[in-house]
Amino acid sequence: MTDGALTPEQILTAAEEALRRYGPAKATVVDVARALKVSHGSVYRHFPSKAALREAVTERWLEQAHSSLLAAVKADGPALTRLRKWFTVLFEAKRTKALSDPELFATYLVLVGESSDVIERHVQGLVGQIEQILLDGVAQKQFEVDDLPLVARALFDAMNRFHDPAYAHEWAQPGINDAFHAVWALLERALSARP
Amino acid sequence: MTDGALTPEQILTAAEEALRRYGPAKATVVDVARALKVSHGSVYRHFPSKAALREAVTERWLEQAHSSLLAAVKADGPALTRLRKWFTVLFEAKRTKALSDPELFATYLVLVGESSDVIERHVQGLVGQIEQILLDGVAQKQFEVDDLPLVARALFDAMNRFHDPAYAHEWAQPGINDAFHAVWALLERALSARP
Repeated sequence: MTDGALTPEQILTAAEEALRRYGPAKATVVDVARALKVSHGSVYRHFPSKAALREAVTERWLEQAHSSLLAAVKADGPALTRLRKWFTVLFEAKRTKALSDPELFATYLVLVGESSDVIERHVQGLVGQIEQILLDGVAQKQFEVDDLPLVARALFDAMNRFHDPAYAHEWAQPGINDAFHAVWALLERALSARP
Repeated sequence: MTDGALTPEQILTAAEEALRRYGPAKATVVDVARALKVSHGSVYRHFPSKAALREAVTERWLEQAHSSLLAAVKADGPALTRLRKWFTVLFEAKRTKALSDPELFATYLVLVGESSDVIERHVQGLVGQIEQILLDGVAQKQFEVDDLPLVARALFDAMNRFHDPAYAHEWAQPGINDAFHAVWALLERALSARP
């Protein structure tokens, strides 16, 4: 491959493959360059350090579900319906990643653990999407919310069992969908309640 | 010490001390016996195996907060107030354990991870306490709950960030108490809502 044709996207895909093959402890930039048949200098032209490359791989992985989540944010219809859809899509995306390729999932948990900045930005992005939907719900007079950021984060926290990888080992258990709906039903009732 | 005077409680305390000193990977029954100046046979008379001893240590540790939680269960007054108190006590107990002795806390997380039965029984005991309070709330006509076990577990799940050791690293963060109250406010509103 000539360097000119090398895109960041190709590098990220090769880096993910290297992480999958050699594990997070051993994968190097040289592995990535070799797989792409370029010099490691070509990789460094796009990502200034191994740490920067790993962060970018992690961010891309975390954001894979974002387009379908954004669809729920931008959809028409009652805010509560969109919010339920949003949490459903989030759970489905995380669960699919955890169960379909557990080894890669474990690898990413190591990477995420390395970078609290990346995870913090990720969570803030997600909570921001909840805020958007809440804002529409307030405009639609579907519910009243005093402190949007606080309530958005509280909803995100309350649904932790259904999106935080710390619970991935429970996501194949029977009854997990009932548990999801039971927590969601409480939150929906809380939001719909007239004070 | 003579074997006759040896109580299970003393063995558990010595075992905790051995775990703290040598770590969960290295602590042995012989370490426990040596600390107590008894033969390891005396320890085995109370706990048939090293695994049984470790489980018992873990259970005792998990249940340290139970007496103060039970006080909230058995208290008089409105069920919602007791439930808030219950979650507050639970959070305080876990947070104190996590922050006051992080090394021992980490040791126990390893032990808990070894025994999914112990953690399962522990969670069921806690959810059972929530159910008790909910039952009183229904009797007091403070709220209506269709499926007590399901709703009790949903409340427990929704408060995960404030009792699950997976979040211990967040328990010293500024704003964590506000986050607690924000989630609890949603749940209180959900329970109080007239359908």
